[in-house]
Amino acid sequence: MKLDRVLIYGMGLMGGSLSLTIREKFPNAKIFAVVRSEKSKNSIIQKKLADQVLLNDETFSIDWDQYDLVVFSTPVTSVLKLIPSLPKKSSTIFMDLGSTKQSIVAAVDQHFGNFKHNYISAHPMCGSEQTGPLAAIPNLYQDKLCILTKPKAASQTSFEAVNKFWETIGSWTIPMDANVHDETLAYVSHLPHVISTILVNVAGKNKTTMEQVSSITKPITGGGFRDMSRIAGSNAEMWASIFEENKVFLKNSIDDFIKELNEFRKLFQEETNLDESSIHSIWDLALKQKEIIQKTK
Amino acid sequence: MKLDRVLIYGMGLMGGSLSLTIREKFPNAKIFAVVRSEKSKNSIIQKKLADQVLLNDETFSIDWDQYDLVVFSTPVTSVLKLIPSLPKKSSTIFMDLGSTKQSIVAAVDQHFGNFKHNYISAHPMCGSEQTGPLAAIPNLYQDKLCILTKPKAASQTSFEAVNKFWETIGSWTIPMDANVHDETLAYVSHLPHVISTILVNVAGKNKTTMEQVSSITKPITGGGFRDMSRIAGSNAEMWASIFEENKVFLKNSIDDFIKELNEFRKLFQEETNLDESSIHSIWDLALKQKEIIQKTK
Repeated sequence: MKLDRVLIYGMGLMGGSLSLTIREKFPNAKIFAVVRSEKSKNSIIQKKLADQVLLNDETFSIDWDQYDLVVFSTPVTSVLKLIPSLPKKSSTIFMDLGSTKQSIVAAVDQHFGNFKHNYISAHPMCGSEQTGPLAAIPNLYQDKLCILTKPKAASQTSFEAVNKFWETIGSWTIPMDANVHDETLAYVSHLPHVISTILVNVAGKNKTTMEQVSSITKPITGGGFRDMSRIAGSNAEMWASIFEENKVFLKNSIDDFIKELNEFRKLFQEETNLDESSIHSIWDLALKQKEIIQKTK
Repeated sequence: MKLDRVLIYGMGLMGGSLSLTIREKFPNAKIFAVVRSEKSKNSIIQKKLADQVLLNDETFSIDWDQYDLVVFSTPVTSVLKLIPSLPKKSSTIFMDLGSTKQSIVAAVDQHFGNFKHNYISAHPMCGSEQTGPLAAIPNLYQDKLCILTKPKAASQTSFEAVNKFWETIGSWTIPMDANVHDETLAYVSHLPHVISTILVNVAGKNKTTMEQVSSITKPITGGGFRDMSRIAGSNAEMWASIFEENKVFLKNSIDDFIKELNEFRKLFQEETNLDESSIHSIWDLALKQKEIIQKTK
C-alpha cells in the first residue's frame, strides 16, 4: 500500500492519534488534516499532528484523488454527508472510523451502486473520555481490535490493504457485517455509555448523597463508582450521533436492561428476607459471562 | 491506643490487608485471626497474616477482654449475630468494617442499651473484585476514606481512639450517621454493583453479541465495557448480605434508576430523529455531577 499522502478528515483524539501512529510506522507519509475550527487547527499545528491543516470551509473543492488514503475521523452523521461527494472512479482508498456501520454501508452502497470501489469501513475499538487533538497519543491503536466492514461492491484489494494498514500500526482485525457490528456494539459499548451516564445522574439527584458529597473536600466514592462513571457524559455530540445511527439496536438493549433490572427489583417486593439464592444465581451468571466476554478464562 | 493484642474476626481481603497494615504501623501488636475454613486458615498461615489462627468452631468461648482491639471483618449478617455476645463492661474496643450501618447500630443500641460502651462502626471505602486472604495487600487502606459511625452510647474516647487508628494506618475519616451512610452508599456503591452485574447479564443474553464473542479468541470489548463490568458478579455472599441490610434504600435507588432510564428510553419512541438537545442536556448534567461527586473540578 502506497502511503505518501494521507488525508485525515476530522482530527480529534482518534484522527490525531492515527496521525502520530502513521508518522511512526510510515515516516515518509505526508499528512493532511481537515478540521472545523481555528482552535483545532492551532492545536494540530502546535502538536505537529499534520503537515498541512485545512479549515472545513476552505475545502469545498477537495481533490480526493491526490491522496493515497482518506480517513474520515468524524461522527457518523458527518461521514454520511461526505460519502455522496466521493469520486466513483478513483484509486484512493477511503476509510471511516465510524462507531456504527449500517448507515455508512447503506450510504456507500447507494452512492457507488455496482461500481467497484475502495471504500472500507473501520471501527478501531479504542477511545478515551478525553477528546480533541491535544489528547492524541501515538499508541492508542496498539494491541486494539479494529473491526472491518466491507461494503458489497468494495474491492478485495482495498479490503486487504486496509487490513494490512491496521496490522502495521499494531491493531488486530476482524471482519464483521454491518448489522452484526451494530447490534453487538449496542450491547458492549453503546448501552454501557448510557448506563454510566444515567447512574451518575441518579446519584446526582439524590439529596442525601449530594449533601454528603458537598460537606467534605475529598471524594466519598470508591473504585466501583469511579470505574462505573468514567465514561459518563463524555463526548455528547459523538454519542448523540451514534445513538441516532443505532437507535433500533440501542432501544432493544435498553429494553433488555430495564427488563432485567425489573426482574432483579422484584426480589425487593416482599417484606421477608431477600432470596439470597436468586442473588447468587444472578451474580454467578455475571461472573461467568464476564469471563467469557472478556476472555479472562 | 494500646495495641498489643488485636483480634481480626473474619480474615478475607479486608481483614488480611488490615493485618498487614497493622504489622507495619504497630510492629509490636500480636495479631489473632478467627476464620471459618481450613483453607483460609492455611492461606493466612502461608501469608503470615496472623500470629495465631482459630477456626470458627473452636471459638465458642472467645474471651473478648483479652484483646485491645477486636475487628469484625465479616459480612454484616455475621456481625449482627456476634454483637449480642459481646461483654457489656469491657475496656476492649470493638469495631466492624461493615458495608451498611443501620442494622449494626440498631443491634449495638439494643445490646448495650444505656451502658457506656466502646463499639464503633467503621466503613473503609476500599475493596477489590479480588477476595480472600491471599489477595491481601499492605496498602489497601492508604489514602482511602474510612467512614466512622458512633452508636449513641459509645464513649467519645473509643471514637477518638478508632479515629486515630485509621489515621495512623493512612486513611482519612469522616463521621456519618447510620441512616445517612446507608442511603448515600446505596447510590454511590450498592446500586453501581447491581447495575454492573445486570449489564453483563444483558450483554450475555444477547445472541448476536455472544456469537461474535465466541467466534474470536481475543476480547471484543473496549475499555468502557471493561470498566463497567469490573465489579460485576463479585463476592455474591457479601453483596447478598449488603442488599439484605440496605434493602429499603437500595430499592429506592433502583426505582430512581429505572425511572431515569425510562425517561431516556422515551427519546427512542418516535420514528423521527433523536432529540439531540435532550441527549446533550443529560450528558452535560452527568459530566457536571461526576466532577462534583468525584471532586475533580
